[in-house]
This record gives sequence, structure tokens and C-alpha cells, in this order.
Amino acid sequence: MKTRRDYLSSLTAMKPNMYKFGEAITNVITHPATKRTVESHARAFDAANNPEYAELFTTTSYLTGKKIMRFNSLMKTSEDLLLNAKLKREMYRLTGTCAGGVCVGWNAMNVMWAVTQEIDAEFGTAYQERLKNWIIKAEEESLVVAAALTDAKGDRSKKPNAQEFPNTYIHIEEKRDDGIVISGAKVMICGVAASNEIFIVPGGGYKSEEADFAVACVVPRDIEGLTIVETRRPSDKREYENGFDIPETGITQAYLLFDKVFVPKERVFMAGEFKYSGKVVQYFTANYRSCIGACVAGQGDVMIGAAALMARANGLPMKKFKDKFIEMSINNETTYGVGIAAMTLGKAHPSGAWICNDLMAHTNKTLVGKLPYETKRICQDIGGGVVETGCLPSAQDFAHPLYGQYIQEVVKAGAVSAEGRAKTARLIEWLTLGAGVPGCMHGGGSPDGARLVINSKIPYEKYIDYAKAVAGVNEETEDPGLKK
Amino acid sequence: MKTRRDYLSSLTAMKPNMYKFGEAITNVITHPATKRTVESHARAFDAANNPEYAELFTTTSYLTGKKIMRFNSLMKTSEDLLLNAKLKREMYRLTGTCAGGVCVGWNAMNVMWAVTQEIDAEFGTAYQERLKNWIIKAEEESLVVAAALTDAKGDRSKKPNAQEFPNTYIHIEEKRDDGIVISGAKVMICGVAASNEIFIVPGGGYKSEEADFAVACVVPRDIEGLTIVETRRPSDKREYENGFDIPETGITQAYLLFDKVFVPKERVFMAGEFKYSGKVVQYFTANYRSCIGACVAGQGDVMIGAAALMARANGLPMKKFKDKFIEMSINNETTYGVGIAAMTLGKAHPSGAWICNDLMAHTNKTLVGKLPYETKRICQDIGGGVVETGCLPSAQDFAHPLYGQYIQEVVKAGAVSAEGRAKTARLIEWLTLGAGVPGCMHGGGSPDGARLVINSKIPYEKYIDYAKAVAGVNEETEDPGLKK
Amino acid sequence: MKTRRDYLSSLTAMKPNMYKFGEAITNVITHPATKRTVESHARAFDAANNPEYAELFTTTSYLTGKKIMRFNSLMKTSEDLLLNAKLKREMYRLTGTCAGGVCVGWNAMNVMWAVTQEIDAEFGTAYQERLKNWIIKAEEESLVVAAALTDAKGDRSKKPNAQEFPNTYIHIEEKRDDGIVISGAKVMICGVAASNEIFIVPGGGYKSEEADFAVACVVPRDIEGLTIVETRRPSDKREYENGFDIPETGITQAYLLFDKVFVPKERVFMAGEFKYSGKVVQYFTANYRSCIGACVAGQGDVMIGAAALMARANGLPMKKFKDKFIEMSINNETTYGVGIAAMTLGKAHPSGAWICNDLMAHTNKTLVGKLPYETKRICQDIGGGVVETGCLPSAQDFAHPLYGQYIQEVVKAGAVSAEGRAKTARLIEWLTLGAGVPGCMHGGGSPDGARLVINSKIPYEKYIDYAKAVAGVNEETEDPGLKK
Amino acid sequence: MKTRRDYLSSLTAMKPNMYKFGEAITNVITHPATKRTVESHARAFDAANNPEYAELFTTTSYLTGKKIMRFNSLMKTSEDLLLNAKLKREMYRLTGTCAGGVCVGWNAMNVMWAVTQEIDAEFGTAYQERLKNWIIKAEEESLVVAAALTDAKGDRSKKPNAQEFPNTYIHIEEKRDDGIVISGAKVMICGVAASNEIFIVPGGGYKSEEADFAVACVVPRDIEGLTIVETRRPSDKREYENGFDIPETGITQAYLLFDKVFVPKERVFMAGEFKYSGKVVQYFTANYRSCIGACVAGQGDVMIGAAALMARANGLPMKKFKDKFIEMSINNETTYGVGIAAMTLGKAHPSGAWICNDLMAHTNKTLVGKLPYETKRICQDIGGGVVETGCLPSAQDFAHPLYGQYIQEVVKAGAVSAEGRAKTARLIEWLTLGAGVPGCMHGGGSPDGARLVINSKIPYEKYIDYAKAVAGVNEETEDPGLKK
Repeated sequence: MKTRRDYLSSLTAMKPNMYKFGEAITNVITHPATKRTVESHARAFDAANNPEYAELFTTTSYLTGKKIMRFNSLMKTSEDLLLNAKLKREMYRLTGTCAGGVCVGWNAMNVMWAVTQEIDAEFGTAYQERLKNWIIKAEEESLVVAAALTDAKGDRSKKPNAQEFPNTYIHIEEKRDDGIVISGAKVMICGVAASNEIFIVPGGGYKSEEADFAVACVVPRDIEGLTIVETRRPSDKREYENGFDIPETGITQAYLLFDKVFVPKERVFMAGEFKYSGKVVQYFTANYRSCIGACVAGQGDVMIGAAALMARANGLPMKKFKDKFIEMSINNETTYGVGIAAMTLGKAHPSGAWICNDLMAHTNKTLVGKLPYETKRICQDIGGGVVETGCLPSAQDFAHPLYGQYIQEVVKAGAVSAEGRAKTARLIEWLTLGAGVPGCMHGGGSPDGARLVINSKIPYEKYIDYAKAVAGVNEETEDPGLKK
Repeated sequence: MKTRRDYLSSLTAMKPNMYKFGEAITNVITHPATKRTVESHARAFDAANNPEYAELFTTTSYLTGKKIMRFNSLMKTSEDLLLNAKLKREMYRLTGTCAGGVCVGWNAMNVMWAVTQEIDAEFGTAYQERLKNWIIKAEEESLVVAAALTDAKGDRSKKPNAQEFPNTYIHIEEKRDDGIVISGAKVMICGVAASNEIFIVPGGGYKSEEADFAVACVVPRDIEGLTIVETRRPSDKREYENGFDIPETGITQAYLLFDKVFVPKERVFMAGEFKYSGKVVQYFTANYRSCIGACVAGQGDVMIGAAALMARANGLPMKKFKDKFIEMSINNETTYGVGIAAMTLGKAHPSGAWICNDLMAHTNKTLVGKLPYETKRICQDIGGGVVETGCLPSAQDFAHPLYGQYIQEVVKAGAVSAEGRAKTARLIEWLTLGAGVPGCMHGGGSPDGARLVINSKIPYEKYIDYAKAVAGVNEETEDPGLKK
Repeated sequence: MKTRRDYLSSLTAMKPNMYKFGEAITNVITHPATKRTVESHARAFDAANNPEYAELFTTTSYLTGKKIMRFNSLMKTSEDLLLNAKLKREMYRLTGTCAGGVCVGWNAMNVMWAVTQEIDAEFGTAYQERLKNWIIKAEEESLVVAAALTDAKGDRSKKPNAQEFPNTYIHIEEKRDDGIVISGAKVMICGVAASNEIFIVPGGGYKSEEADFAVACVVPRDIEGLTIVETRRPSDKREYENGFDIPETGITQAYLLFDKVFVPKERVFMAGEFKYSGKVVQYFTANYRSCIGACVAGQGDVMIGAAALMARANGLPMKKFKDKFIEMSINNETTYGVGIAAMTLGKAHPSGAWICNDLMAHTNKTLVGKLPYETKRICQDIGGGVVETGCLPSAQDFAHPLYGQYIQEVVKAGAVSAEGRAKTARLIEWLTLGAGVPGCMHGGGSPDGARLVINSKIPYEKYIDYAKAVAGVNEETEDPGLKK
Repeated sequence: MKTRRDYLSSLTAMKPNMYKFGEAITNVITHPATKRTVESHARAFDAANNPEYAELFTTTSYLTGKKIMRFNSLMKTSEDLLLNAKLKREMYRLTGTCAGGVCVGWNAMNVMWAVTQEIDAEFGTAYQERLKNWIIKAEEESLVVAAALTDAKGDRSKKPNAQEFPNTYIHIEEKRDDGIVISGAKVMICGVAASNEIFIVPGGGYKSEEADFAVACVVPRDIEGLTIVETRRPSDKREYENGFDIPETGITQAYLLFDKVFVPKERVFMAGEFKYSGKVVQYFTANYRSCIGACVAGQGDVMIGAAALMARANGLPMKKFKDKFIEMSINNETTYGVGIAAMTLGKAHPSGAWICNDLMAHTNKTLVGKLPYETKRICQDIGGGVVETGCLPSAQDFAHPLYGQYIQEVVKAGAVSAEGRAKTARLIEWLTLGAGVPGCMHGGGSPDGARLVINSKIPYEKYIDYAKAVAGVNEETEDPGLKK
């Protein structure tokens, strides 16, 4: 399999088009703003080449029968989805945070496998064949692929075509024989700095007058006309420091500013078929929201470990916190479990792609927007004042000739060294209110959206009928409508 | 398939050995204390004979290839378990409450399928063959089978053999060539009044000096030497009334008082093999706690329906309560979903029986001991003061010549009739603090026990290693033990 | 002070006008449907005559300087309100449930003290003087007074004067020189059976066309033309039993059916001054919702005690449940505390009556509709399966010659006797899902109404200004209004 | 009153003894690490000189009758405590975060007022007179005073005198006729950088062999022998930036490293009277934990405002989030209210100092360690993905010549400007997981400690007696003790 070294080379070979703090990032694998997310993704290649993890991180291609990175594979069974979730949980355990490039592009590609078949069936297009060719390439090159769904959106009360600024949503500017020209912003896109390519999918269900916004394609990260601006994150300036105040892994999110970018037709999988844009969102959220419970569970696992380690570093036995660890575990397994249920209750799409159960997936999204917050609170509760806001002197102060020794003497508390205690406190700070926080509330869409889906999936009349039958109410009833 | 009529006949044919309020119950299908749970169970036979439900309520025997009631079947795949859960959810929807006779015996029989194979392998016994013969009979006769796990327990600080009264735990009094003689109490056993037989399994993991308590067998409900006392339930006297103040379905729980009961060897599946008693509990709870999330979800479905119906009866639109319905649904699907995950992550036992994942199953038990309480609270919140404590005049008062008309006029509120509104309020009372409350906190064992299992399943050292790797802590750490 | 005996005599002297289950209740102090609530109220007179409690249960009249029952007193300071709350908490501790006759009339009388002053000031009426005369009488006779605010309401989408049935709301049928004639239903009124009189206040804020619904007065419980129908409660039929399955105290709620009832003008305190009906509701809820936190705290205290006692009866040490007891206590003190804050932040009305802080009072209402449910759940969690649904044989079965001894032997678990354990289990059943449940969700109005008040009290623009100042945002901002 | 200018001068006049990131901080009012907390505190002086706030921020001295800053006053009534809470809530509204220098020293001084009287009474010392003299000085000079309670603590399983490093706890090294010499570390001390003086109090209850740790005194912030190291905070490096990515106010916490510091006896209020060290902690926590509910409520008010502002900036109407705002408000008022109850239920100490109710105060601490986390979660929920992790380009990127304009166009969403939207998002980031997070979980001590106090305050036997009386259980019962 592709190795860490191969992967890093593939990133270095790309042209620079990224910025943060107004400065160009010329080499993502060494630049402080991006090297941590690259490190996170590199660990996936380490795992693929490590016998302990290889079975999870690699698989056999449905298309070619070759051994490939799992995150490039088609998912045709609920078992495939489950392994997606397991891989994500393991990635969080190995890195402490989100590695979007081994996850979102994977999901987008599978969703488009289903949607292109539907489009082709109606319009006689050959999108799926194009996609298949690209997938084979991605499999062979073990491409890390981010995906971009969220547009900048602008004024929420107006439709895409009524926005003040046209770049508020990505859109087709021109259709040419050999491809399309697109402009517009996709925002808050995870893992871009560590990715080889970016998969673009529509962010909403569009109508005929919005056909230009119904676009799906995949582009190299360094495509001509694309400017990428890395967003800030909590404590992101700490990534520019030396010293032990921040872990070596990380996550990034980016604004993608497309300005008349030409995408050749081989890489285009939807171009104006607005009717199917909603399907993309439906399938995407169903599968994505099933799997994100595994992400927060994996981070929760690290939080259990970090809290237990902190207890030791504080000189306290784990037993004292047993009930709190159990609560953390319940939260972790609940989001993991409801996601698995969404897979189990899912169905195979005619294209072969497995599509998870909507109601269960969106139920999970609401849990993912809530339970990890409790897990973090408990982690801070166990860890003590030293972790709550990272209330410790800096690494530089630990080393200061005048007072560093004094600090180290009073920081040491339990069986762990002063520096070990400091690093553990910093880990919890990083996990709970630092640069490692992944964004589980709104990532993959907001809980309020999930609630609307849930509401639409509750079979109210059926449930009323059950209630009537048990209660012995036989008359017809009708909703009185809103009070005037 | 066996019909409601056949089923009722099978119950009527049994000898009377049941009591409540100090009075003998001679006919369970007409006696007010038992007729409601019989009605609940009868609906399973209606469903099996109804094309809409037949596929769920019946299946093909793994043993004989014949069509049987699903609740008599062996469960060999996670799909079988899922259908168990679906059947239970549907039973709650059809009856509003618990029908233990189509559920617990089913679980006990499957668990014993696995455990007898283990015992036979060690001791060369032929328990599984005996069990197989009994299962074939149960399948052919579509037997409704309760199961009894919980002993009276007595002083929790003493072991079974150290109790003041020997009948505190069920135990073997005598081993004979043709069978065993047992005495002792199993308590809080659900669905007995509606069952043909009762499956006895050990309630704990026993040691050599407690070998006599390691007993599993199945007995007819009316076996010689068994006295059954029905326990009370909230508002249980209402079951003795006429009028619309209580639904027609119901649940019962019983004390089973065994006094030197002879069980022929063909019906005995464990008799002293103490080492395997803990296995029974382990497998039983794993599978049972996976499926009970479906029960409370099914009751939750009826609560959504009842609350929506009550809103109408109060003259209020459902839309006003949208967020509350969504919360109810999230609770329902969460317990259902985590249970499904336990099935999906389970494994086939060498005997073929499917055993669910422990961590996920016990996580679900803690949720089942919590979320339904919130669902009930929301149901009462939506329903208004009229449902909270059933604050309505009685059916007799509705019909009173002097003031009945007045009451009916002022009770009528929305599009539903006064009586319909009253029945709906009574349904919610029954579901949330009346005779329909099934006991989701301690049924199938208490949450505190589940928490202990969860704690034992958290791989603390592994999680600490993940945390150390992300934090960059390389030193050895050790738990400081309890503070002296 | 008036004694229990005096009090019981005063009840016996009244004319029968009460019904339950279609039967007349001729003597409230002996009839099974009402004797328990009478017992509850009688304990207030015991307390007033008991040196340990006398200071709390009696006070000095602001009007006459004489020693009176506290529940007949005017409340002019936050300290007076605090003592109201303390008295209510103590009443719950002494009876386990709600005694509405020492509480709601008290509140109504104080609220009307303020409102009559406002009406008199505008209209030159002499309502307050009339009220004063009645209060002096109530003080001298130590009257137990229920109060009735909630009308039957009917179709919630229609105003009182547009209802299908005129009796849906209480209203003035005729104004005469010597008084008024009223008809209509007040429903779900607590403590009526144990009261000497009933205080009627309007249930909403009315407009000019609804002036006939703006009526406040006080009537003897047995006034001509009033029919009282006791409502059902969970397990209410158990009140008709002998044996130990139900405590000796209790609560009742009633439907009051007024049919052309003449109220002499001395007892009328509002008759058409619709503009002030909203004030009644505002002041009533502010003071009432401040104090109800004490009620549920008092019941919570009994639940802590009951759970601890049950642990002992189960043979388990309290220490095992420490964290759960702490959670129960936090819930209790939170509702008690937020209520006290509402008093502390209140203000004296020009009439001298103390009016509690709205925002804090309604915040408390939402907590009272939520936290006690958690306390009950924890109580059931600690108590074990035996308490969850009262899963024990009946008192009659305990005494059965055939199997009673057997039951008693297996029910005995810890240091407590079998009967003691059974009574404790029944107490928890009664408190958490039996006849002792008081109705904290909707009693005194529903949480949803409280939430509307809270919303109206949040100073959004002020808080936005704070946020802008800290964020450094200087521009004007405006709410975009609802999305079209 | 002292003005902002006077205050800043008083800080500038001090000698430099502070460090962060290994660098000396020579001027706290201009150094990026400290200027924000100075700004926060300066706003208290602005308020004192602003008619709108003067009444709250100033008061009349009980000692001299002069007008003084309220935060220098003795608090002798529950009303004084309430005004303490109101001042703290207002400080949070004005600054968004914690200004420890106007709060903790105030509390320490009042607590010591009570404790010195007790010590003087037993030992004939004159500590209170010394304290009085210092208070008069503090009042006259409007001193901002931090307070230090928390020692470094080291190995939690060992007592102070058994620690590996003596400086782990502050202690008396030498007693001299003219004062004492102290060494040791106080850690995580809030507001030091903005303070004129620091009040030292013991961090635990000590026994005779730990008498040297029983020390209370007050020292100038720049006293000889004291080295102060500022701790890190989330996103603290952002404080070194220019641009709009961080507000102008802030909070700091410090490690105080005392190394043979001489404190003249006039400033010493406890020196070895170990028996009273526990009293300090008891009174300190009672009063402090009553008031901190106001702090988190004040920050919660800003969060309501910020969330509402963000909704506008996103182009969404506030109405859409009504229920979420109400939840935030309920959380705010609950911690505020329970604190007020602790005051109302408090008592005057013989010294005149008002001491709040323990049970209610510690109940509040547990709420303060929980509810604000929910408020933050809701704030992030309302704000959308842009606020969750501050997922926006930096201020520098907004101004970039190449792509700044593009960013501004796509960031603009509602009626607010792009920069206004960005600032609002940054405010929420700062409040919920940035440098503005104050540490409500462990600040003023950990919830677990509060829970122990609650447990000790639950009158278990009394509550059991209530339960027994209601249940009709007359026998003696005893706790079975822990299971062997």
C-alpha cells in the first residue's frame, strides 16, 4: 500500500494555493498551519501498512478486485458502512480529532454513485461511467479526498439566485463541450490541506431556476482558479509554537474560493440536473450522519483515556471517578450505536450503494450535537481545575531559568512527571476547548435540520391509530389547525 | 396458525393455581385480574393470522422447516434478533404494554440453546437434545411461555445458601432418576397468567457450594405444587370495574411459589452445573437488553399517538408541540437503535444461537432506565392537566342522571367527543402512571448492574495509551490506588 | 388554636353536595374517597397545636393582632412568603402529598387583597373592605379554603363567550342588588373535600365582551346550587380498601359544577371589572409558582427518606446510593431555592401584599415541571424492582392462610420486617405513580405558559447591546423577521 | 470615586514581577497578556462614575460612613450579598468574562472578618483590628484585591507536610516579632494582573501538625520575593494579535510563587491557628458559591445577546430560536436564583458578617458546574457552524488584497456587515471555547467537594422518619452497612 512517505510526496508535488493569516502556505507538510492535519492523515497510511490495523484500513475493490485503501472503496453493504464507522472511530483514537480527507470525499463518492445512476437513467447521460473511471484512479493512487457540500449561503431568507453576491453559492458559469466553468465559495471544508482532491456536491435541493447551482464534480486541490483560505480554530496560534503545549496532530477547515475554474467533463457528475440535487443531500446526510457517531465516540475514547491519565497525574485513583467514566462510555456507545442501527436498517440502492435509514441517521445527528458536550464536561470535571481552561504556565515558563524549576516542583502531583501532567492537561484542553475540537454540532449539517427530517418521518396518523385502538376511541379525529 | 380461539382454549384447559387479593382465579380469560393480559397475548395470534402482520409474527422453524409463531423460534442471526425487537415493538403498539409470554420464554429458550451445548460439551449430558424436543413441541403447539429469572433474593448481603428462609431462592431439593424436585420463589414474573408454560433459569452466577441453585427447566403453568400470586400494579383495582376508565389490554406480574415441585428429566436443562449459571445470566441479559429498547420505543410510539390525539381532543394543533414530539421520537429511536447495534455487533455462538454485544446491550439498559421517563414526562406535558394524574370524573359520573350531562358538556373541548377525550386522557394516565406502566427501570435487571458491566468492558489501559500517544506522554503511569 | 377535633366538626356540619363513582359522599371525614385528604389537612391543626411546629403553622394577624393559623394570614413581606413556602414543604413532609386547602385559598385571598385595591381605586368600589371582613372571619374561624382558578375551558381555539356550552367557563348570570348569580364549571380543584370554603377567581385575562367571566368571590363549600364531583386519581380505588397497601393521607381534586348559585355581595370581590382579571392571574402565578418549589421539595424529602428506608429494607447500605441521594437533594433544593429567589426579588404592592418576581417565579414553574420527575425516577432506581410498579402481592395475600406465610418469608430482605418492607414499597409506589402524585407539571398552570412569560421577560435588546459592546460591533442591527 | 485613570496609574506604579511565555511583563496596562483583564477591571471604575451604575458599584462604608467602591465593603446583610451578586452579574455583562480582582479579595476579606473574631475570642489576638485597619485603607484607596485560596496541592494522597516539595503549599517559614516569612505556591489565581493587592487565605482545614499552613494575610501584588507567572488560556496567543479576532476585555489566572516573602504583622490575620483554617474554607465557599451563579448568569445574558445577534447576522429571525433562548434564560436564572436563596437563608455571624446557607450554596456550585455548559451548547447551536469552532478566516485574511474582498462578500449573510458578523462569531467562540471562558466548573472549588457537603447536610434520619410516618412503618431500622 501507499506509504506515509508516498503520501507526503504527493502533497508536496502540488502547487501552492493556500493561505492563512494573510500569508501563503507553500508546503503543507511543513507549514505550522497545516502540518498537523497532514500528520493526522499520514497516520491512516501508517495504519494501512501496520498488520494490526491493515484489515480495517484496506479492502478489496469492488471494481478491480485489487487491494485498496478502504477510504477509496464503494460501500455496498451495511457491513461496509460499519467498517467506515469503525475506521473513523479508529482514526479519532489515533489522532484525537478529525481527518476529513479520509472521510467526506469517500462519502460523497458513494452518494454520487447512487445519484449518477438515477440521473443517467432519466437523461441518458454517462455520469456513472465517468465516476467509475475516477474512482478506479482514486483507488489506484490512494487519493485523499476532501468533499465540499456547504456553500457560503449568504442571506438565509433568499434563494441562491437572489443573493446579492453571485459567489455566495458555487455555480456553473459556463458549459463547454469539454467541461464546465464554475465559480463560488464552499466554506468550512474539512481536511482540504491534507487532501489530493476535492469532491464538490450541491449543498441543497434546487429548482429549475436554480439549475446552475446543481453541480457535482471532483477537482485537484491545486486546480487553477481555486484559492483556499484556512479558517481559524480555537488556540490555532499555538500551532505556530514550539514546545509541548499542543499535540502533533490536528484538523483544518477551509474556505474554497472558486473563480472561473474550468473542470473537464470527465470530472463532472452533475451539471444542471437540479431535480437530483436534493437526492444528493438526502443520501449524503443519511450515510454521513450514521457514521459521525463513531467519530465522536472515538474522540470520547481518547477523552476517557485522557481523564483517567489526568486522574493519575493528579494522584487520584480511577475508581473515584467510575460513575463518570461510565457516563462517558454510555455517551460514546450511544452515538456509535444509533449510527450502526441506521446502517442496519438501511437499504441497497439500485446502483448497489448502501443508503442508511433516514430516521435513525438524523436521530443520531441530534445526539451527536448533544452528548459529546456532556462527555467533554465530564472530562473537565474529572481532570480538575488544571484542565478546565488549561490553567497552567506555558512550556517556555516550565523551562525558565529563574522560576521554571519552582513551577515544575509544584506542578508535579501524582505518579506522572510534571511535564507529563502538563501535556495531559494540554491534551484535555485541546480536546475540549482547543484546536482539537472537531465541530460535532454543525459538522455535516445542523441538528435543527435533522429535527425537521425526524418530524417528517414520524408517522403521526399511524401512531394516533394505535393510541385510538388501545384507548377504545372509534371516532374520526382531525387536527384543529393553528389557533386563529 | 393457531388462532385466538385455540389459544384461549389452551388457557381454559389449565388447572387453577392462581390468586389475587386472597381470592382464587379460576378462569384467567374471564377473571378481571388476568383477562387483560390474556387479551394482550391473544392479539399476537390475531396478528399471526392477519396478512398485514403475518410475516413478522410467524417464521419458518430452523428445526422442522414448518411455519411457526416467531416467538417460538430459534434465533441464529442478528436479523432474527432484529425481528424479535420488531415484534416486541409491534406488540407494544398493538397492546400499549408488555406481553411477557411472547418474549421472555423465547429469550430463555435461546439462551439455554447455547448454554446446554456448553454443558453437554463438558459433561457429556444431553440437555440440548431434551431442549430441542421441547422446542419442537412448543413450536407445534405455539406455546406462550413466560420465563422466570429473578429469585426473591432476601438479604442482599448474604448468599443463597445463607438465607434465613430456604425458599428465598429456587433450588433443587431432590435429584431423582426421573427428574428433580424444586422449591423456592421466583418473583415479579411477567405474563404468567397468559402463558401455557414457564421457563425457569438461574438468577445469578453460582459457586460450588451453591450448586443446588443452578437449575433450569420448563414447567406447565399449572404444575402440581406451584402456587401463583398475582402482584399489584398501579390502579389495578380499576381492572375490576366496568366502564371506559381502563383499556382492554394489560400486563401482569406474579410471584411463583414452588413447593416441592417435581419436574421430569425431559424438561430439565441444568441441574447443578453451577459453573454455567453465570453464562445464562450473561447471555440472557445481552440478548434481552438489546431487545427491550424496542419495547419502550413501541410504548413511546403509542405515547406520541396518544399525546397527538389528546392535543386534538383539547382543541390544539399538533404543530404547537412539534419539538416535543421530536424529543419523544428521539428517545424512542435511541433505545431501539442502540439495541439494534448490540445485535449487529453480536456474534454467533458455536451452538448457532446469536449472542448480542455486551457493552452495547448494557449501555442500552441504562438508556431504557432513563429515556422512557422523559418520554412520559413529555407526554404528560403535551396532554395537559387532565392527563397528568387522570384528573377527570369517573365513567360512572359521566353517566350520572343528575350531573352527568353537565360533566360531558364541560369536558368536551376539541373536535373529539367528551367520552373520546376522557378515554384518551385515561390512556395517557394508564401509560404513564397507571396499570400499563411496564417497569422499564428494573425489568430484565437493574441499571446499576448494567453499569458494572459497562465499567468492566471499558478498555481503560487501551484508551490511556491512545491518550498518551496523542499527548506525547511516553512514561509509564500507574493508578495510585485508593487514597488511604 | 382550632384543633383537629374542631376542624373535623366543622366539616361534618356541612351539607352533602359531593359525589364520586356516581355515589353521594355524605360524610367527608369517614368516606373512603375523601377521608385521606381530610386527614392530611387535619395534620395542619395538629402541627399548630404542637410546640415543635406552632411557630411555623401560626402567626399574628396583621388585621387584628390575634394569633391565627398562618394559612389565613396576609403576606406583606418576602419573609411571609418564605414562611408560606416553609409551611408547604413541611405539610408535604407530614403528609407526603398536597393539601390544597391550606394553600390555594391563602394565595387567592392575598392576590385579591392587591387587586381589590386596584379596582377600588379606579371604580370607587369597596371590594377590599368586603374582603377584609371575610379575612377576619376566616382568621377567627381558622377556615380551610380551597381556591378555584381553572375553568373547564372547552375548545381552546375559542373565547369563553364563543363556547358551545355556556358552563364551560364560570360566569355571572345575573347581577342583583344583594349579590350575583353564577354558573359554570371550575375543574381540577384541589383540596375541596377538606375545605370549609372555596375562593373563586378568574382563570384568564378577559376583554370587555367577556366581562361576565371576570368574577371573584368566596363561597361555602356546601352552597346551594353547587355540585361537586371528585375526580379519579391513580390507584384511587385502593382508597376503598382496608389493609396496608395505601397510606392514611391523601389528596383530592374536584369538578365544581355551579348551577345558578347566588353569592351575596359581601362575598363578591370582582364582578365584571374584566380589566383586572389579568392582574389576578399575573399576581396569582407569581406568588404561587414561587412557593410550589417548596411543595415538590417536601415531597422530595420524603422520597429521599423512602428510598433510604427501602435500601435498608432491601438489605443494602445507604452509602451505595450516595450519589443518587445527592442528585435528589439538588433537585429539591433547586426548586425550593429558585422560589425563594422569586420572593427575595419581589416587591410590595401598594396594598401591602408582597408580589414575587415574575421571571424567577415562572422559571421555577418550568423546573417544577421537570426536576421532580427525575427525583421520582431516581427514587425508583434506588428502590429496586419491588417499588417500580409496586410489584408485590396485596395485603390480603400477605395474610392468606394457604400461602401468606410463604410470601412473608420471601419478601423479607433486610433488617426491616416483611410488612415494613411492603409498606415502604407501597409508599414509593404511592409517591411516584400512585394516589400521592400531586400534579406538579400542570398544577398552578402549565410550563408552556411559564415559558411564554419567561420569553416576554428576557430583555433581548439589552442583552444584544451587551454582546455588541463586548464584541466591538457598532452598527445598528435589526431582526430580519420571519423567512417568507 | 477613583477613576479609571487613577486605577491605571496605581497599577503602573507597581514593580514588575510578572511573566508569561518566559518573558517579563513590565507594564500590565499595555502588555498584551494582561491589558485585557486590566480593561475589564477598569470598567468597574467607569461604572462607579456612571450615574446609571453608581448605586450598584458604590456603597457607604459600615466602618467610616464614607462612599466607597462596593467591592471594598463589609457585607452584613443578605441584601449586601445580593448586591455582591448583582455587581458580579453586571461585571460579566460589561466585560463578558471574569474580573477576579473585584470579587475574590472582597469575599476573602469578609470571611476573615468573621474568622478573626473567632480567633481573637479564643486566643486574645487582635487580628480583627488589624484587618479593620487594612479594610479602611482598602476602602479609601479603592484597592482592587485578588485572593488566593488554592495551593498547588501536589500528591492528593498526601498531607501538606508530607509532600515531596515544601513549596507545594504556602506555609510559614519563620515567625518574627514584626511579621512572618512565607513560601509556597498558590495557583490558578484569577485577576492578579489587574490587582493592587492579593489576599492569602488557607486552602483547607488543617490539624496541629499542619499549623504552619494555617496562614492568612494580604500583600501588595509586587511584594519582594513574589514571582507571578501567568497561565495559558484557550486561544491566549490571539491576545497578542491586532485585528478584530478577539474582544478588548479578558481574564487572567496566575501561579504565585512565594519565596521567603516577609509579611509585616499588620497584614497578617492568621498565623498558625490551624483550628480556624477549616472555618475559612467553610465560610468562603458558602458565600462565594452563592454569588458565582450571578457570574455565569451574567455571561449567559451576553450569550443570549450574542446568539440573538448572530441569528440576525445569519439572516434569521430570533423567533425561530425562541425555545432555545428560553432554555438559556432558565439556566441563567436558576444559578442566579439558587444563589439568592443561599443568601436569603443565611445568617449573621456574631461578627456581623453575613454567612450564606451551606446546603443551598453548595447545591448552587453543582449547578454552576453544569448548566453553563448547556447554555454554551445552545449558544453554539443557535449560532451555526460559523461559531462552533470559530470557523472563519482571520482578520488579516479579511483584509488581504488578493482574496479579502471575495471573503467579505461571501461572509456577509444577513443585515449585519461582514465584519460585524465575523466579530459576533468571534465573540461566541471567545465565550464558549476561547479566552473568555472563565472556569465555572472548578473555580471556587470543584463540584465533587460541593457534593460531599450536600451529602453531609441531608438529614437522612429525619427524612426516613417522615417516610416511616407516612408509610405507617413503626419499627426501628438500621443501615446494614457495606456488604462484605
